[in-house]
Amino acid sequence: MEVKIITKILKANDEVAAELRREFDGKKIFCINLMSSPGSGKTTLLEKTIEGMKEKTKIGVIEGDITTSIDAERLQKTGAEVVEINTKPFGGDCHLEAGWIRESFHQMEAKGLDLLIIENIGNLVCPAEFDTGAHKNIVMLSVAEGEDKPLKYPLMFHKSDLLIISKSDLIEIQEFDIGKLLDNVKKVNPDIDVIIVSARKNTGIEEWIGWLNKNISIKK
Amino acid sequence: MEVKIITKILKANDEVAAELRREFDGKKIFCINLMSSPGSGKTTLLEKTIEGMKEKTKIGVIEGDITTSIDAERLQKTGAEVVEINTKPFGGDCHLEAGWIRESFHQMEAKGLDLLIIENIGNLVCPAEFDTGAHKNIVMLSVAEGEDKPLKYPLMFHKSDLLIISKSDLIEIQEFDIGKLLDNVKKVNPDIDVIIVSARKNTGIEEWIGWLNKNISIKK
Repeated sequence: MEVKIITKILKANDEVAAELRREFDGKKIFCINLMSSPGSGKTTLLEKTIEGMKEKTKIGVIEGDITTSIDAERLQKTGAEVVEINTKPFGGDCHLEAGWIRESFHQMEAKGLDLLIIENIGNLVCPAEFDTGAHKNIVMLSVAEGEDKPLKYPLMFHKSDLLIISKSDLIEIQEFDIGKLLDNVKKVNPDIDVIIVSARKNTGIEEWIGWLNKNISIKK
Repeated sequence: MEVKIITKILKANDEVAAELRREFDGKKIFCINLMSSPGSGKTTLLEKTIEGMKEKTKIGVIEGDITTSIDAERLQKTGAEVVEINTKPFGGDCHLEAGWIRESFHQMEAKGLDLLIIENIGNLVCPAEFDTGAHKNIVMLSVAEGEDKPLKYPLMFHKSDLLIISKSDLIEIQEFDIGKLLDNVKKVNPDIDVIIVSARKNTGIEEWIGWLNKNISIKK
């Protein structure tokens, strides 16, 4: 009985997500869903990204957290339009659902929006199970987390279109083996794109912004 | 209706957990539940811990993962008795429940066991909601994850008796502010114990083993 209920929730979520994606297409908005463990550096990368793109690109952010608006406040300072979803009223949920994204999106002004960024809740498990309506799923993994994570959290890496390897300035001190990580991720997703960044050292940010711009132009 | 079902599951879990804790008490086994984000270094710390304790202490490990037995195999090499729970057959669950722990424990020989370690699934959200039957909950946070995590994942830090701050060799390079982290954690749990470790540099391991030995002796 449990499983049936879960399937039903997932099916309802998928339908809302598909509708929402059509709405984004109609409005020529490119939407990404950024997922990772807690503390892999999503918000720091987004600060750099918005700073680097905002002159030419109108960006909105839907910020998911169980509680607090720490990240939303950080991103608001970049000038992007930010809406915060706190899942605590929904029982401290560990993921975002398409219905909550739609509600948040409709609370935005969103006029002339080119790029909508969903910063999902820090969690490598549950967010991968729920389609948010985004066009691309992105998983971020910091080199502090270890090379085995694609094998241990395969659904997340399987569902993602792009892997961002973050905190690359720690590669040496962490004795991190990029080749091993790439081997592992290709086992669960041979088609995934990979970008290596360090927000601290400002490396890889241009490549990442280039990836976003290419996808934004496809939607226009 | 959903909420009712979840409550029922949680209540059933709590009952099994309480029974299991009584069973551990009867057998004079001290049981800990170790939780963290993916990649904070749980398995590496456990390798060091078991190596440092195994001469005097009989240790068992219940290893939780969605899939793979990478961590279980690493820990088996230390000579500890290890049982792996893969949650993939249960739908890729993001946490461990007391019933699965009990079943795994009953599969162990467990003769003369002093310490049972549950290595929970890498996730700062869901594992905190489920009592595993352990006597103490331990949350591990690597300095690569940032000082704000107790505020963003308050239930995890509220439910834990001990915070292990890991990868302390990265404090300088990460510009990590221990004082800020401690302020944040005290806001959600004023009584939590704190131990700072670096498995790489072998610091804090003695203090951690001392904490375990003190608790093991209380159960005898």
